[in-house]
Amino acid sequence: MSGNTFGTLFRITTWGESHGPAVGVVVDGCPAGLVLDSSDIQKELDRRRPGQSDITTPRKEEDKAEILSGIFSGKTTGAPISILVRNYDVDSSKYEALRDTPRPGHADLTYREKYGFRDWRGGGRSSARETIGRVAAGAIAKKILGMNGIEVFGHVVELGGIRANSIDIENIHNNTEKNPIRCADPDAALQMEAMIHAARGQGDSVGGIVEVISIGVPAGVGEPVFDKLSAQLAKGLMSIGAVKGVEIGLGFKSSIIKGSQMNDPLAMKDGKPKPLTNNAGGILGGISNGEPIVCRIAVKPTPSISKEQRTVDLSSMTDTRIKITGRHDPSIPPRIVPVAEAMIALVLVDMMMRGGFLETSIMDRL
Amino acid sequence: MSGNTFGTLFRITTWGESHGPAVGVVVDGCPAGLVLDSSDIQKELDRRRPGQSDITTPRKEEDKAEILSGIFSGKTTGAPISILVRNYDVDSSKYEALRDTPRPGHADLTYREKYGFRDWRGGGRSSARETIGRVAAGAIAKKILGMNGIEVFGHVVELGGIRANSIDIENIHNNTEKNPIRCADPDAALQMEAMIHAARGQGDSVGGIVEVISIGVPAGVGEPVFDKLSAQLAKGLMSIGAVKGVEIGLGFKSSIIKGSQMNDPLAMKDGKPKPLTNNAGGILGGISNGEPIVCRIAVKPTPSISKEQRTVDLSSMTDTRIKITGRHDPSIPPRIVPVAEAMIALVLVDMMMRGGFLETSIMDRL
Amino acid sequence: MSGNTFGTLFRITTWGESHGPAVGVVVDGCPAGLVLDSSDIQKELDRRRPGQSDITTPRKEEDKAEILSGIFSGKTTGAPISILVRNYDVDSSKYEALRDTPRPGHADLTYREKYGFRDWRGGGRSSARETIGRVAAGAIAKKILGMNGIEVFGHVVELGGIRANSIDIENIHNNTEKNPIRCADPDAALQMEAMIHAARGQGDSVGGIVEVISIGVPAGVGEPVFDKLSAQLAKGLMSIGAVKGVEIGLGFKSSIIKGSQMNDPLAMKDGKPKPLTNNAGGILGGISNGEPIVCRIAVKPTPSISKEQRTVDLSSMTDTRIKITGRHDPSIPPRIVPVAEAMIALVLVDMMMRGGFLETSIMDRL
Amino acid sequence: MSGNTFGTLFRITTWGESHGPAVGVVVDGCPAGLVLDSSDIQKELDRRRPGQSDITTPRKEEDKAEILSGIFSGKTTGAPISILVRNYDVDSSKYEALRDTPRPGHADLTYREKYGFRDWRGGGRSSARETIGRVAAGAIAKKILGMNGIEVFGHVVELGGIRANSIDIENIHNNTEKNPIRCADPDAALQMEAMIHAARGQGDSVGGIVEVISIGVPAGVGEPVFDKLSAQLAKGLMSIGAVKGVEIGLGFKSSIIKGSQMNDPLAMKDGKPKPLTNNAGGILGGISNGEPIVCRIAVKPTPSISKEQRTVDLSSMTDTRIKITGRHDPSIPPRIVPVAEAMIALVLVDMMMRGGFLETSIMDRL
Repeated sequence: MSGNTFGTLFRITTWGESHGPAVGVVVDGCPAGLVLDSSDIQKELDRRRPGQSDITTPRKEEDKAEILSGIFSGKTTGAPISILVRNYDVDSSKYEALRDTPRPGHADLTYREKYGFRDWRGGGRSSARETIGRVAAGAIAKKILGMNGIEVFGHVVELGGIRANSIDIENIHNNTEKNPIRCADPDAALQMEAMIHAARGQGDSVGGIVEVISIGVPAGVGEPVFDKLSAQLAKGLMSIGAVKGVEIGLGFKSSIIKGSQMNDPLAMKDGKPKPLTNNAGGILGGISNGEPIVCRIAVKPTPSISKEQRTVDLSSMTDTRIKITGRHDPSIPPRIVPVAEAMIALVLVDMMMRGGFLETSIMDRL
Repeated sequence: MSGNTFGTLFRITTWGESHGPAVGVVVDGCPAGLVLDSSDIQKELDRRRPGQSDITTPRKEEDKAEILSGIFSGKTTGAPISILVRNYDVDSSKYEALRDTPRPGHADLTYREKYGFRDWRGGGRSSARETIGRVAAGAIAKKILGMNGIEVFGHVVELGGIRANSIDIENIHNNTEKNPIRCADPDAALQMEAMIHAARGQGDSVGGIVEVISIGVPAGVGEPVFDKLSAQLAKGLMSIGAVKGVEIGLGFKSSIIKGSQMNDPLAMKDGKPKPLTNNAGGILGGISNGEPIVCRIAVKPTPSISKEQRTVDLSSMTDTRIKITGRHDPSIPPRIVPVAEAMIALVLVDMMMRGGFLETSIMDRL
Repeated sequence: MSGNTFGTLFRITTWGESHGPAVGVVVDGCPAGLVLDSSDIQKELDRRRPGQSDITTPRKEEDKAEILSGIFSGKTTGAPISILVRNYDVDSSKYEALRDTPRPGHADLTYREKYGFRDWRGGGRSSARETIGRVAAGAIAKKILGMNGIEVFGHVVELGGIRANSIDIENIHNNTEKNPIRCADPDAALQMEAMIHAARGQGDSVGGIVEVISIGVPAGVGEPVFDKLSAQLAKGLMSIGAVKGVEIGLGFKSSIIKGSQMNDPLAMKDGKPKPLTNNAGGILGGISNGEPIVCRIAVKPTPSISKEQRTVDLSSMTDTRIKITGRHDPSIPPRIVPVAEAMIALVLVDMMMRGGFLETSIMDRL
Repeated sequence: MSGNTFGTLFRITTWGESHGPAVGVVVDGCPAGLVLDSSDIQKELDRRRPGQSDITTPRKEEDKAEILSGIFSGKTTGAPISILVRNYDVDSSKYEALRDTPRPGHADLTYREKYGFRDWRGGGRSSARETIGRVAAGAIAKKILGMNGIEVFGHVVELGGIRANSIDIENIHNNTEKNPIRCADPDAALQMEAMIHAARGQGDSVGGIVEVISIGVPAGVGEPVFDKLSAQLAKGLMSIGAVKGVEIGLGFKSSIIKGSQMNDPLAMKDGKPKPLTNNAGGILGGISNGEPIVCRIAVKPTPSISKEQRTVDLSSMTDTRIKITGRHDPSIPPRIVPVAEAMIALVLVDMMMRGGFLETSIMDRL
């Protein structure tokens, strides 16, 4: 397996399995002089970690971040930042029954095809615990962005087919983190929560759509052609487990409207040319235009369901059936929000460094 | 501008502007011993080039590929393959009027923000002519894939809101290239064509959805975590101009169904475990599972429209209006098909090389 | 600081400071199925660690490797392997006196120029402890090479101006690790040891030349032009602290002989064309030719010396003088041997993977 | 063959064979706004091209650079710059005799091992004509450096065992380009020229040592650990054909002196801490310190010699002998000077961009 590194100048490398001793990340390319301690990282890990409500997995993990390098006297030194999170509540007992029966919708069979055998304990490297490294690194990226007036925040816009109502940014700010769904529309949030309970009651699961908005990104970020800002975001978001679609701005809706409806008209505003609408989602020709960058991801329903499913027994090579009883989230979108934010923050910092918008060696402007 | 290179082991670098002397590509990492001549490349360039029907731009370009390196005695040598396509029908006259009035929906303003000034002739580097290098390189990738029993083919599944009817692979093979829309449903194709003419008549344009299917990809391709096959495909596809969304398998539809509906059940077939359905679109955990890989992209309507639009005059910094009269396609989906196929073929060859499925130095099996 | 990652397919990322809590490495791209435990890594760390004799630093570190990921049931899974080594014998007291007086020959001033401030405790990231990650990762690379019949071993050929006598490979194998100098000529080793003691007695230090030989590398490894095997080796070796020169084969000596003396004549041997001599050092045109690959590095004398030296006081910006009294090696060459071997092993595995000589996903041949 | 791309942010991709239709380079990452035309590139190509004196190959090539993209209105646009140089004086007749008899000291056999067959015409991709792309791209890098007060210049310090006398920078500037050897010591240059003629008369060849000095590089350039400035330079220089050794500062000489002699003492000068000597060659801990960066390369004697040599006949797999009669340089050092300068300039621009010393998108300071 290669491909555990993401980014060019601001670059992260993650490691660790669900049921191994620990998971972690090395962040390389963080400039020197950033005031940073583990609380900056903990804040985001706490948003990601399980056990925040009854709609998440019952696995109990404090997910405490230990910073092992790159900080001196409370500031980053420019050296790589190694962050470690120990796994404590490891219980592989439920998984032993599954070692020869690949779970439909999971990576069990594909890992086996690729590597010959696999770490069957809790999904191994394909577990959602892999995202801890992303979120820890993303917390640093978010801090850098925040110091430059950029905010990245996500919310659930659809879950199990229920859509959140017309939501403005004010609302998203105020309401999203107030409910376990991370939905800015409180009424919809209640329905979504009920929907999750109902699905779980039926031994089933539901998916949804998460939107992430980045405000304050200056115009000019992104490298045209292959490293378009939109292309880097698409890669970062599609690399999150359970994501089956990515769209920018109007996305798939743009395919059914006319050019005259899609194009954002331009007009002078405060002495600068500005688009009057934001159908483009803040990116044109792969380069940011200064408007909010709007990304949405389609999150499939959790593949782990207790409903009986057809599968095969790889020891006897015969058909069989399974009911999955390990611990898992009945719906991923609420917990994927901080992960998606992290990936977007990582892309933004990296591409802003590449474009000369952020210092790479020393944060002398702080 | 960095970012004109794509791929790790099978790697392409494209260059060239719409109204410059030429466009081209350097393909690095093609193994030695591949029988190749310019006709292999011309075949795909001919599918991409304008002037194939009255629904494309009237610009006349033969798009003749000249191979300048990497071939000896009719075979690749392992050295980089440089391919050049001269621009002939360059007419910048229509663009001079637009040099200070950025076209809504285009990259005019973002390029200016990023680079201080821009090549206003025909879109410069942000023109669709940039895709010639992708298609030329993709032709080589497709040839390599074809020799390994892998086929990559695309078709228009929706245009201007009109959907193609239930299409099986047989149909797609037989019908897609028979109409200028590249739609496998001949009736829908006629309606789509009429829709394009109607939109153009109104000085407007339409977008659509293109699907690309890859058949024969072995199980095990893709690097989990950041370089998932799905993530690499998403980057490659989202890097094509006018693409605003990417989905794999059921994509956004997966967000509204239950886990029990989404998961592809497994069963033994011909002595091997196989999914009974393909909602995953051939990829699980970022790794191919041997089923057809199904990608769809949302293509926005052509931003160049003759309808009057609001914009700004950058010389006087005042509001103004424009009607765009340059040559352009009224609808991009039909011509984006070979470009999307090329990007997918490039990703597949690169990821298959990384996973050890394809030789990197010498095609000794030929 | 970016640049803490090395390699393309077999890729390592190191982190950690001399006086921080730990140092470590993440190895990405190791194929699944390799039998591996911490003893494989410990073996090489023990060759590198201090305290093996009285010619090394008195710092006491067990340098115990803890593997945190990527292993299951005694075998690699294909997932990244995270290795952690805690720092125990940290004593920063001696360094406090040096925080404002940059040590000549060290990176103190250049780090300060680049990052604005620096971790002055024991050299921080520029300490030789940074090489622990290299050696730990190199141990895995060496194991993979060993299974493919390739051996990489180094020895000190010159130290403080004293040269080892005519050494054949048999001798190097048998004698090198028997003396603390790692010199295959036992008589020279004794003189070198005396030379180190004498230099230390004068508050001074000595450098030397280390040679590393790689036996069994098949012909055809290396990518011509920029990623020549020789170029990758040069980068890897020159990236080790204290290395000021790299040469392959006859190296600098090749500049003073004639072409007819330099060229290795070819002749048939056992049915294959073979060079009769190895002036090229196993590489021609950047590609291995099947002969032993011979690299030599020039190692400067330890910059930390107790002799008085001129420097500046950065707090008062005046001239001053220092005597360095921290713990350090009086001569680096003996301890750099396993580091140089590691870098070469890492390059070989990576380039052999790129050339298709080693599996990237699964070691099915084991 | 992969590996035809060099650099991270300022990145070049070269292509082309000695006896193919053309050679060239794509330069990606050049910022917009640089005044550039083909004369900037021609100037350096003219220094590299053959036929400047009777000590170079008699091959007649004008090496005229054609810029195909990336320039508009006399300035770079930020888009990739594609440069093409046609091959005219192609004469493969002499090489046909050599197609089955690999030339000792050349890459003939290693290419064959790697790629199964090879382009035997004039060395194909392993020919010195491959360096045209490097020099063309290096000319752009040099122009950028020059605008930032940085100069990179090389000279021959040793040839065929003859050393140039004590040379100061003034002398190098004034004298180097005045003689065909590119030696700053005019007396030594005459002896070297005689040495070349003598060697050629004997059907033999000579090598030498080239030194390149970079003046004006600010302190702080280079990424510690693997991407040290010294490591990147070593890779770039060792990637040039015929180079067998690289050293920085005192290089191999540093291995025989004491620490107290090697360390450059520091003292205040004009209000800044400065080293009093430059044994380090301008780099400490992989980071530039503001002093001249001094690199030296060992260049082996031209492997093509007319003296009879032992080789093998690959068609009959028997021993044989050859005399090489194609066109070639009897001594490479004089012509390698601009190539080495180019590689160093490319490394400096790339690493300065990575460290934030140079703009990546727009040269707004011009």
